[in-house]
Amino acid sequence: MISSSVLFYGIYVLCLCLGLLCVVFVSYWNIEWRGGFAWDASFLQFNWHPVLMVTGLVVLYGNAAILYRIPFTWSQRKQCWKLVHAALLLSSLFLSILGLCAVFDFHTGYHIPNLYSLHSWVGICTVVLFTVQWVLGLVGFLSPCSPLGFRKLLKPVHAWMGMAIFILSLASCLSGINEKLLLALDGNSNSTAAYSSHPAEALFANFLGVLIVAFGLVVLGILSNQRWNRLEPGQESSRSLLPEDN
Amino acid sequence: MISSSVLFYGIYVLCLCLGLLCVVFVSYWNIEWRGGFAWDASFLQFNWHPVLMVTGLVVLYGNAAILYRIPFTWSQRKQCWKLVHAALLLSSLFLSILGLCAVFDFHTGYHIPNLYSLHSWVGICTVVLFTVQWVLGLVGFLSPCSPLGFRKLLKPVHAWMGMAIFILSLASCLSGINEKLLLALDGNSNSTAAYSSHPAEALFANFLGVLIVAFGLVVLGILSNQRWNRLEPGQESSRSLLPEDN
Repeated sequence: MISSSVLFYGIYVLCLCLGLLCVVFVSYWNIEWRGGFAWDASFLQFNWHPVLMVTGLVVLYGNAAILYRIPFTWSQRKQCWKLVHAALLLSSLFLSILGLCAVFDFHTGYHIPNLYSLHSWVGICTVVLFTVQWVLGLVGFLSPCSPLGFRKLLKPVHAWMGMAIFILSLASCLSGINEKLLLALDGNSNSTAAYSSHPAEALFANFLGVLIVAFGLVVLGILSNQRWNRLEPGQESSRSLLPEDN
Repeated sequence: MISSSVLFYGIYVLCLCLGLLCVVFVSYWNIEWRGGFAWDASFLQFNWHPVLMVTGLVVLYGNAAILYRIPFTWSQRKQCWKLVHAALLLSSLFLSILGLCAVFDFHTGYHIPNLYSLHSWVGICTVVLFTVQWVLGLVGFLSPCSPLGFRKLLKPVHAWMGMAIFILSLASCLSGINEKLLLALDGNSNSTAAYSSHPAEALFANFLGVLIVAFGLVVLGILSNQRWNRLEPGQESSRSLLPEDN
Protein backbone atom coordinates (compact mmCIF):
# COMPACT_ATOMS: atom_id res chain seq x y z
CA MET A 1 0.00 0.00 0.00
CA ILE A 2 1.45 3.38 -1.03
CA SER A 3 1.91 5.73 1.95
CA SER A 4 -0.18 8.88 2.21
CA SER A 5 2.93 11.14 2.12
CA VAL A 6 4.44 9.43 -0.95
CA LEU A 7 1.09 9.78 -2.73
CA PHE A 8 0.98 13.46 -1.72
CA TYR A 9 4.44 14.20 -3.11
CA GLY A 10 3.61 12.39 -6.37
CA ILE A 11 0.50 14.55 -6.80
CA TYR A 12 2.40 17.66 -5.65
CA VAL A 13 5.05 17.18 -8.36
CA LEU A 14 2.24 16.79 -10.91
CA CYS A 15 0.71 20.02 -9.60
CA LEU A 16 4.04 21.91 -9.91
CA CYS A 17 4.55 20.60 -13.47
CA LEU A 18 1.00 21.55 -14.53
CA GLY A 19 1.43 25.03 -13.02
CA LEU A 20 4.72 25.53 -14.86
CA LEU A 21 3.15 24.32 -18.11
CA CYS A 22 0.28 26.83 -17.67
CA VAL A 23 2.78 29.71 -17.38
CA VAL A 24 4.82 28.47 -20.36
CA PHE A 25 1.72 27.97 -22.52
CA VAL A 26 0.09 31.33 -21.74
CA SER A 27 3.41 33.14 -22.41
CA TYR A 28 4.11 31.24 -25.64
CA TRP A 29 0.56 31.91 -26.90
CA ASN A 30 1.02 35.66 -26.49
CA ILE A 31 4.55 35.71 -27.93
CA GLU A 32 3.91 33.43 -30.92
CA TRP A 33 0.42 34.55 -32.03
CA ARG A 34 -0.34 37.86 -30.29
CA GLY A 35 2.89 39.79 -31.00
CA GLY A 36 4.59 39.70 -27.58
CA PHE A 37 4.60 42.31 -24.84
CA ALA A 38 4.89 46.06 -24.20
CA TRP A 39 3.54 48.56 -21.64
CA ASP A 40 2.24 51.28 -23.98
CA ALA A 41 -1.59 50.99 -23.82
CA SER A 42 -1.50 48.99 -27.09
CA PHE A 43 -2.65 45.44 -27.90
CA LEU A 44 0.82 44.38 -26.72
CA GLN A 45 0.05 45.72 -23.25
CA PHE A 46 -3.18 43.73 -23.21
CA ASN A 47 -1.07 40.59 -23.73
CA TRP A 48 0.27 40.95 -20.17
CA HIS A 49 -3.30 40.47 -18.91
CA PRO A 50 -3.69 36.70 -19.55
CA VAL A 51 -0.06 35.99 -18.58
CA LEU A 52 -0.30 37.86 -15.25
CA MET A 53 -3.75 36.50 -14.37
CA VAL A 54 -2.87 32.86 -15.10
CA THR A 55 0.50 33.17 -13.32
CA GLY A 56 -0.79 35.17 -10.33
CA LEU A 57 -4.42 34.27 -9.80
CA VAL A 58 -4.20 30.59 -10.75
CA VAL A 59 -0.67 29.16 -10.45
CA LEU A 60 0.80 31.19 -7.56
CA TYR A 61 -2.55 31.27 -5.72
CA GLY A 62 -3.05 27.51 -6.11
CA ASN A 63 0.44 26.78 -4.80
CA ALA A 64 -0.07 29.12 -1.83
CA ALA A 65 -3.40 27.40 -1.04
CA ILE A 66 -1.86 23.93 -0.70
CA LEU A 67 1.23 25.03 1.25
CA TYR A 68 -0.01 23.75 4.63
CA ARG A 69 -0.80 20.35 3.09
CA ILE A 70 2.89 19.56 2.42
CA PRO A 71 3.75 16.89 5.06
CA PHE A 72 7.31 18.31 5.32
CA THR A 73 5.89 21.51 6.89
CA TRP A 74 3.79 19.77 9.58
CA SER A 75 6.68 19.28 12.02
CA GLN A 76 7.78 22.91 11.71
CA ARG A 77 6.50 26.08 13.38
CA LYS A 78 3.30 27.21 11.70
CA GLN A 79 4.16 30.92 12.09
CA CYS A 80 7.00 30.59 9.57
CA TRP A 81 4.73 28.89 6.98
CA LYS A 82 2.01 31.47 7.60
CA LEU A 83 4.48 34.12 6.48
CA VAL A 84 5.38 32.12 3.34
CA HIS A 85 1.62 31.61 2.64
CA ALA A 86 0.94 35.36 3.07
CA ALA A 87 3.97 36.34 0.94
CA LEU A 88 3.02 33.98 -1.90
CA LEU A 89 -0.55 35.32 -1.86
CA LEU A 90 0.68 38.92 -1.77
CA SER A 91 2.79 38.21 -4.88
CA SER A 92 -0.27 36.58 -6.46
CA LEU A 93 -2.42 39.63 -5.60
CA PHE A 94 0.24 42.01 -6.92
CA LEU A 95 0.46 40.17 -10.27
CA SER A 96 -3.35 40.06 -10.51
CA ILE A 97 -3.70 43.81 -9.92
CA LEU A 98 -0.93 44.45 -12.46
CA GLY A 99 -2.87 42.20 -14.87
CA LEU A 100 -5.98 44.34 -14.33
CA CYS A 101 -3.96 47.53 -14.92
CA ALA A 102 -2.77 46.05 -18.24
CA VAL A 103 -6.32 45.58 -19.51
CA PHE A 104 -7.69 48.88 -18.10
CA ASP A 105 -4.82 50.84 -19.74
CA PHE A 106 -5.41 49.06 -23.04
CA HIS A 107 -9.16 49.80 -22.86
CA THR A 108 -8.45 53.47 -22.13
CA GLY A 109 -6.03 53.65 -25.08
CA TYR A 110 -8.60 52.20 -27.50
CA HIS A 111 -11.71 53.84 -25.92
CA ILE A 112 -13.19 50.43 -25.06
CA PRO A 113 -15.55 50.46 -22.05
CA ASN A 114 -14.40 48.55 -18.96
CA LEU A 115 -16.28 45.77 -17.18
CA TYR A 116 -19.01 44.99 -19.69
CA SER A 117 -18.59 41.22 -20.17
CA LEU A 118 -19.51 38.45 -17.73
CA HIS A 119 -15.82 37.46 -17.80
CA SER A 120 -14.87 40.91 -16.50
CA TRP A 121 -17.61 40.85 -13.83
CA VAL A 122 -16.45 37.47 -12.49
CA GLY A 123 -12.80 38.51 -12.78
CA ILE A 124 -13.15 41.81 -10.90
CA CYS A 125 -15.25 40.15 -8.16
CA THR A 126 -12.49 37.53 -7.81
CA VAL A 127 -9.76 40.14 -7.31
CA VAL A 128 -11.91 42.24 -4.91
CA LEU A 129 -12.76 39.14 -2.82
CA PHE A 130 -9.07 38.14 -2.91
CA THR A 131 -8.03 41.58 -1.58
CA VAL A 132 -10.61 41.40 1.25
CA GLN A 133 -9.50 37.83 2.04
CA TRP A 134 -5.81 38.79 2.17
CA VAL A 135 -6.41 41.77 4.48
CA LEU A 136 -8.73 39.73 6.75
CA GLY A 137 -6.12 36.94 6.81
CA LEU A 138 -3.39 39.39 7.79
CA VAL A 139 -5.49 40.93 10.58
CA GLY A 140 -6.91 37.62 11.80
CA PHE A 141 -3.95 35.23 11.60
CA LEU A 142 -0.75 37.30 11.57
CA SER A 143 -1.62 40.18 13.87
CA PRO A 144 -0.41 39.32 17.42
CA CYS A 145 -3.39 41.12 18.99
CA SER A 146 -6.04 39.07 17.14
CA PRO A 147 -8.11 37.21 19.79
CA LEU A 148 -8.21 33.38 19.64
CA GLY A 149 -12.03 33.36 19.44
CA PHE A 150 -11.91 35.54 16.31
CA ARG A 151 -9.29 33.25 14.72
CA LYS A 152 -11.44 30.16 15.39
CA LEU A 153 -14.45 31.89 13.87
CA LEU A 154 -12.50 33.19 10.88
CA LYS A 155 -10.68 29.98 9.94
CA PRO A 156 -13.51 28.00 8.25
CA VAL A 157 -14.69 31.19 6.48
CA HIS A 158 -11.07 31.83 5.34
CA ALA A 159 -10.75 28.25 3.99
CA TRP A 160 -14.11 28.37 2.18
CA MET A 161 -13.48 31.87 0.77
CA GLY A 162 -10.03 30.72 -0.34
CA MET A 163 -11.53 27.80 -2.27
CA ALA A 164 -14.30 30.04 -3.69
CA ILE A 165 -11.76 32.61 -4.94
CA PHE A 166 -9.70 29.87 -6.60
CA ILE A 167 -12.77 28.43 -8.38
CA LEU A 168 -13.76 31.94 -9.52
CA SER A 169 -10.24 32.53 -10.79
CA LEU A 170 -10.40 29.30 -12.84
CA ALA A 171 -13.79 30.34 -14.29
CA SER A 172 -12.44 33.85 -15.04
CA CYS A 173 -9.39 32.50 -16.87
CA LEU A 174 -11.36 29.97 -18.93
CA SER A 175 -14.02 32.52 -19.96
CA GLY A 176 -11.24 35.05 -20.63
CA ILE A 177 -9.31 32.75 -23.00
CA ASN A 178 -12.58 31.95 -24.78
CA GLU A 179 -13.44 35.68 -25.04
CA LYS A 180 -9.96 36.63 -26.31
CA LEU A 181 -10.07 33.97 -29.05
CA LEU A 182 -13.59 35.02 -30.13
CA LEU A 183 -12.59 38.70 -30.28
CA ALA A 184 -9.14 38.17 -31.85
CA LEU A 185 -10.10 35.52 -34.43
CA ASP A 186 -13.77 36.27 -35.21
CA GLY A 187 -14.14 39.94 -34.24
CA ASN A 188 -11.01 41.23 -35.98
CA SER A 189 -10.99 41.93 -39.72
CA ASN A 190 -7.20 41.31 -39.85
CA SER A 191 -7.63 37.75 -38.65
CA THR A 192 -6.77 35.15 -41.28
CA ALA A 193 -8.72 32.25 -39.76
CA ALA A 194 -12.01 32.04 -37.84
CA TYR A 195 -12.09 30.39 -34.41
CA SER A 196 -14.45 27.76 -35.84
CA SER A 197 -11.89 26.70 -38.48
CA HIS A 198 -9.66 25.28 -35.73
CA PRO A 199 -6.49 27.34 -36.44
CA ALA A 200 -3.30 26.36 -34.59
CA GLU A 201 -3.62 29.33 -32.19
CA ALA A 202 -7.12 28.26 -31.15
CA LEU A 203 -6.08 24.66 -30.53
CA PHE A 204 -3.04 25.82 -28.54
CA ALA A 205 -4.99 28.31 -26.39
CA ASN A 206 -7.83 25.80 -25.86
CA PHE A 207 -5.19 23.33 -24.67
CA LEU A 208 -3.95 26.02 -22.25
CA GLY A 209 -7.52 26.04 -20.90
CA VAL A 210 -7.38 22.25 -20.45
CA LEU A 211 -4.06 22.62 -18.54
CA ILE A 212 -5.64 25.26 -16.26
CA VAL A 213 -8.57 22.90 -15.58
CA ALA A 214 -6.17 20.03 -14.80
CA PHE A 215 -4.07 22.22 -12.47
CA GLY A 216 -7.22 23.49 -10.72
CA LEU A 217 -8.65 20.03 -10.18
CA VAL A 218 -5.36 18.72 -8.75
CA VAL A 219 -5.20 21.67 -6.30
CA LEU A 220 -8.85 21.16 -5.27
CA GLY A 221 -8.23 17.40 -4.93
CA ILE A 222 -5.35 18.10 -2.51
CA LEU A 223 -7.46 20.63 -0.55
CA SER A 224 -10.42 18.27 -0.24
CA ASN A 225 -8.39 15.35 1.17
CA GLN A 226 -8.70 15.52 4.98
CA ARG A 227 -5.67 13.24 5.44
CA TRP A 228 -3.37 15.98 4.14
CA ASN A 229 -4.73 18.59 6.56
CA ARG A 230 -2.16 19.95 8.99
CA LEU A 231 -3.40 19.06 12.48
CA GLU A 232 -3.40 21.75 15.16
CA PRO A 233 -2.13 21.08 18.71
CA GLY A 234 -4.58 18.76 20.49
CA GLN A 235 -5.96 17.30 17.26
CA GLU A 236 -3.28 14.62 16.73
CA SER A 237 -5.39 11.96 18.44
CA SER A 238 -8.35 12.52 16.17
CA ARG A 239 -6.64 11.87 12.82
CA SER A 240 -7.01 8.09 13.18
CA LEU A 241 -10.73 8.60 13.88
CA LEU A 242 -11.45 10.69 10.81
CA PRO A 243 -13.98 9.03 8.51
CA GLU A 244 -12.16 6.73 6.07
CA ASP A 245 -13.14 9.09 3.22
CA ASN A 246 -15.98 6.73 2.41
CA MET B 1 -25.56 29.77 19.46
CA ILE B 2 -27.46 28.75 16.33
CA SER B 3 -27.66 24.97 15.92
CA SER B 4 -25.85 23.26 13.01
CA SER B 5 -29.13 21.87 11.59
CA VAL B 6 -30.95 25.23 11.71
CA LEU B 7 -27.98 26.85 9.96
CA PHE B 8 -28.05 24.09 7.35
CA TYR B 9 -31.75 24.55 6.60
CA GLY B 10 -31.29 28.35 6.32
CA ILE B 11 -28.51 27.84 3.77
CA TYR B 12 -30.48 25.07 2.05
CA VAL B 13 -33.47 27.38 1.50
CA LEU B 14 -31.08 30.01 0.06
CA CYS B 15 -29.67 27.32 -2.25
CA LEU B 16 -33.16 26.31 -3.46
CA CYS B 17 -34.12 29.96 -4.08
CA LEU B 18 -30.89 30.67 -6.00
CA GLY B 19 -31.39 27.52 -8.11
CA LEU B 20 -34.97 28.52 -8.93
CA LEU B 21 -33.83 32.04 -9.83
CA CYS B 22 -31.17 30.62 -12.18
CA VAL B 23 -33.84 28.63 -14.07
CA VAL B 24 -36.23 31.62 -14.21
CA PHE B 25 -33.47 33.99 -15.38
CA VAL B 26 -32.06 31.71 -18.10
CA SER B 27 -35.59 31.02 -19.42
CA TYR B 28 -36.63 34.70 -19.35
CA TRP B 29 -33.40 35.74 -21.13
CA ASN B 30 -34.13 33.37 -24.02
CA ILE B 31 -37.84 34.24 -24.22
CA GLU B 32 -37.48 38.02 -23.92
CA TRP B 33 -34.34 38.69 -25.99
CA ARG B 34 -33.60 35.52 -28.04
CA GLY B 35 -37.06 34.84 -29.51
CA GLY B 36 -38.18 31.84 -27.44
CA PHE B 37 -37.98 28.14 -28.24
CA ALA B 38 -38.51 25.61 -31.03
CA TRP B 39 -37.00 22.24 -32.06
CA ASP B 40 -36.36 22.90 -35.76
CA ALA B 41 -32.53 23.26 -36.05
CA SER B 42 -32.95 27.07 -36.01
CA PHE B 43 -31.64 29.73 -33.60
CA LEU B 44 -34.77 28.99 -31.55
CA GLN B 45 -33.57 25.42 -31.04
CA PHE B 46 -30.21 26.73 -29.86
CA ASN B 47 -32.08 28.63 -27.11
CA TRP B 48 -32.86 25.31 -25.41
CA HIS B 49 -29.10 24.82 -24.92
CA PRO B 50 -28.48 27.38 -22.12
CA VAL B 51 -31.83 26.60 -20.45
CA LEU B 52 -31.22 22.83 -20.38
CA MET B 53 -27.56 23.10 -19.33
CA VAL B 54 -28.22 25.56 -16.47
CA THR B 55 -31.28 23.59 -15.29
CA GLY B 56 -29.71 20.12 -15.68
CA LEU B 57 -25.96 20.47 -15.24
CA VAL B 58 -26.00 23.19 -12.56
CA VAL B 59 -29.29 23.37 -10.63
CA LEU B 60 -30.45 19.72 -10.64
CA TYR B 61 -26.86 18.43 -10.32
CA GLY B 62 -26.08 20.78 -7.41
CA ASN B 63 -29.25 19.75 -5.57
CA ALA B 64 -28.47 16.05 -6.12
CA ALA B 65 -24.92 16.58 -4.81
CA ILE B 66 -26.05 17.98 -1.45
CA LEU B 67 -28.88 15.48 -0.89
CA TYR B 68 -27.00 13.39 1.72
CA ARG B 69 -26.17 16.56 3.68
CA ILE B 70 -29.82 17.21 4.62
CA PRO B 71 -30.01 16.30 8.35
CA PHE B 72 -33.58 15.01 7.86
CA THR B 73 -32.22 12.12 5.72
CA TRP B 74 -29.58 10.94 8.22
CA SER B 75 -31.97 8.89 10.34
CA GLN B 76 -33.44 7.15 7.29
CA ARG B 77 -32.21 4.17 5.24
CA LYS B 78 -29.43 5.30 2.91
CA GLN B 79 -30.55 2.94 0.12
CA CYS B 80 -33.72 5.00 -0.42
CA TRP B 81 -31.76 8.27 -0.68
CA LYS B 82 -29.21 6.64 -2.98
CA LEU B 83 -32.08 5.97 -5.39
CA VAL B 84 -33.28 9.61 -5.15
CA HIS B 85 -29.64 10.80 -5.68
CA ALA B 86 -29.26 8.54 -8.75
CA ALA B 87 -32.67 9.55 -10.16
CA LEU B 88 -31.98 13.28 -9.78
CA LEU B 89 -28.59 12.86 -11.46
CA LEU B 90 -30.10 10.77 -14.25
CA SER B 91 -32.62 13.59 -14.90
CA SER B 92 -29.71 16.05 -14.82
CA LEU B 93 -27.73 13.91 -17.30
CA PHE B 94 -30.79 13.54 -19.57
CA LEU B 95 -31.37 17.32 -19.68
CA SER B 96 -27.65 17.93 -20.31
CA ILE B 97 -27.55 15.49 -23.24
CA LEU B 98 -30.75 17.05 -24.64
CA GLY B 99 -29.03 20.44 -24.28
CA LEU B 100 -26.07 19.14 -26.30
CA CYS B 101 -28.45 17.78 -28.98
CA ALA B 102 -30.01 21.25 -29.23
CA VAL B 103 -26.68 22.90 -30.05
CA PHE B 104 -25.41 20.10 -32.35
CA ASP B 105 -28.67 20.18 -34.37
CA PHE B 106 -28.46 23.98 -34.64
CA HIS B 107 -24.82 23.78 -35.78
CA THR B 108 -25.74 21.16 -38.40
CA GLY B 109 -28.61 23.34 -39.67
CA TYR B 110 -26.34 26.37 -40.08
CA HIS B 111 -23.17 24.46 -41.16
CA ILE B 112 -21.27 25.66 -38.08
CA PRO B 113 -18.46 23.32 -36.96
CA ASN B 114 -18.92 21.63 -33.58
CA LEU B 115 -16.55 21.74 -30.62
CA TYR B 116 -14.19 24.51 -31.68
CA SER B 117 -14.32 26.86 -28.67
CA LEU B 118 -12.79 26.35 -25.23
CA HIS B 119 -16.34 26.60 -23.83
CA SER B 120 -17.37 23.59 -25.93
CA TRP B 121 -14.23 21.61 -24.98
CA VAL B 122 -14.85 22.15 -21.25
CA GLY B 123 -18.59 21.52 -21.68
CA ILE B 124 -18.25 18.24 -23.58
CA CYS B 125 -15.59 16.97 -21.12
CA THR B 126 -18.00 17.79 -18.28
CA VAL B 127 -20.85 15.76 -19.79
CA VAL B 128 -18.54 12.82 -20.70
CA LEU B 129 -17.09 12.76 -17.15
CA PHE B 130 -20.63 13.02 -15.75
CA THR B 131 -21.76 10.00 -17.82
CA VAL B 132 -18.75 7.94 -16.65
CA GLN B 133 -19.38 9.05 -13.06
CA TRP B 134 -23.09 8.09 -13.20
CA VAL B 135 -22.39 4.63 -14.65
CA LEU B 136 -19.56 3.99 -12.14
CA GLY B 137 -21.86 5.17 -9.31
CA LEU B 138 -24.62 2.80 -10.46
CA VAL B 139 -22.23 -0.17 -10.70
CA GLY B 140 -20.35 0.67 -7.49
CA PHE B 141 -23.06 1.83 -5.11
CA LEU B 142 -26.41 0.48 -6.35
CA SER B 143 -25.45 -2.90 -7.78
CA PRO B 144 -25.98 -5.57 -5.06
CA CYS B 145 -22.97 -7.57 -6.26
CA SER B 146 -20.48 -4.69 -5.89
CA PRO B 147 -17.84 -5.78 -3.31
CA LEU B 148 -17.41 -3.65 -0.16
CA GLY B 149 -13.69 -3.13 -0.89
CA PHE B 150 -14.51 -1.63 -4.29
CA ARG B 151 -17.14 0.70 -2.72
CA LYS B 152 -14.63 1.94 -0.12
CA LEU B 153 -12.07 2.59 -2.85
CA LEU B 154 -14.59 4.26 -5.15
CA LYS B 155 -16.24 6.59 -2.61
CA PRO B 156 -13.54 9.30 -2.24
CA VAL B 157 -12.97 9.22 -6.02
CA HIS B 158 -16.76 9.54 -6.56
CA ALA B 159 -16.97 12.52 -4.17
CA TRP B 160 -13.96 14.30 -5.73
CA MET B 161 -15.13 13.60 -9.30
CA GLY B 162 -18.60 14.84 -8.34
CA MET B 163 -17.16 18.14 -7.09
CA ALA B 164 -14.88 18.43 -10.14
CA ILE B 165 -17.81 17.89 -12.55
CA PHE B 166 -19.85 20.55 -10.74
CA ILE B 167 -16.99 23.09 -10.92
CA LEU B 168 -16.51 22.31 -14.63
CA SER B 169 -20.25 22.75 -15.20
CA LEU B 170 -20.12 26.19 -13.54
CA ALA B 171 -17.12 27.19 -15.71
CA SER B 172 -18.88 25.85 -18.83
CA CYS B 173 -22.06 27.83 -18.12
CA LEU B 174 -20.21 31.08 -17.37
CA SER B 175 -18.02 30.85 -20.47
CA GLY B 176 -21.09 29.83 -22.51
CA ILE B 177 -23.15 32.87 -21.44
CA ASN B 178 -20.15 35.10 -22.22
CA GLU B 179 -19.69 33.44 -25.63
CA LYS B 180 -23.40 33.68 -26.51
CA LEU B 181 -23.48 37.41 -25.67
CA LEU B 182 -20.31 38.10 -27.68
CA LEU B 183 -21.64 36.21 -30.72
CA ALA B 184 -25.24 37.50 -30.50
CA LEU B 185 -24.48 41.15 -29.74
CA ASP B 186 -21.06 41.74 -31.37
CA GLY B 187 -20.86 39.02 -34.03
CA ASN B 188 -24.34 39.54 -35.51
CA SER B 189 -25.04 42.32 -38.00
CA ASN B 190 -28.73 42.40 -36.93
CA SER B 191 -27.79 43.31 -33.37
CA THR B 192 -28.82 46.82 -32.37
CA ALA B 193 -26.38 47.25 -29.46
CA ALA B 194 -22.83 46.05 -28.85
CA TYR B 195 -22.04 44.01 -25.70
CA SER B 196 -19.72 46.81 -24.60
CA SER B 197 -22.56 49.38 -24.62
CA HIS B 198 -24.19 47.59 -21.65
CA PRO B 199 -27.60 46.84 -23.26
CA ALA B 200 -30.34 45.48 -20.97
CA GLU B 201 -29.91 41.93 -22.31
CA ALA B 202 -26.21 41.93 -21.45
CA LEU B 203 -26.81 43.20 -17.91
CA PHE B 204 -29.58 40.64 -17.40
CA ALA B 205 -27.53 37.69 -18.71
CA ASN B 206 -24.43 38.82 -16.79
CA PHE B 207 -26.60 38.86 -13.67
CA LEU B 208 -27.68 35.30 -14.51
CA GLY B 209 -23.95 34.47 -14.41
CA VAL B 210 -23.67 36.06 -10.97
CA LEU B 211 -26.65 33.96 -9.77
CA ILE B 212 -24.99 30.79 -11.10
CA VAL B 213 -21.78 31.71 -9.23
CA ALA B 214 -23.75 32.35 -6.01
CA PHE B 215 -25.63 29.03 -6.34
CA GLY B 216 -22.38 27.17 -7.04
CA LEU B 217 -20.56 28.66 -4.06
CA VAL B 218 -23.45 27.84 -1.70
CA VAL B 219 -23.48 24.20 -2.92
CA LEU B 220 -19.68 23.93 -2.56
CA GLY B 221 -19.89 25.56 0.89
CA ILE B 222 -22.38 22.88 2.00
CA LEU B 223 -20.24 20.09 0.52
CA SER B 224 -17.06 21.33 2.18
CA ASN B 225 -18.55 21.48 5.70
CA GLN B 226 -17.63 18.21 7.44
CA ARG B 227 -20.33 18.74 10.10
CA TRP B 228 -23.06 18.18 7.50
CA ASN B 229 -21.57 14.90 6.30
CA ARG B 230 -23.84 11.89 6.81
CA LEU B 231 -21.97 9.52 9.11
CA GLU B 232 -21.81 5.85 8.19
CA PRO B 233 -22.44 3.09 10.78
CA GLY B 234 -19.53 2.98 13.23
CA GLN B 235 -18.51 6.61 12.62
CA GLU B 236 -20.94 8.22 15.06
CA SER B 237 -18.29 8.34 17.79
CA SER B 238 -15.81 10.21 15.65
CA ARG B 239 -18.00 13.26 14.85
CA SER B 240 -17.18 14.95 18.13
CA LEU B 241 -13.48 14.41 17.42
CA LEU B 242 -13.50 16.00 13.98
CA PRO B 243 -11.25 19.07 13.79
CA GLU B 244 -13.20 22.14 14.88
CA ASP B 245 -12.97 23.55 11.34
CA ASN B 246 -10.19 25.80 12.58
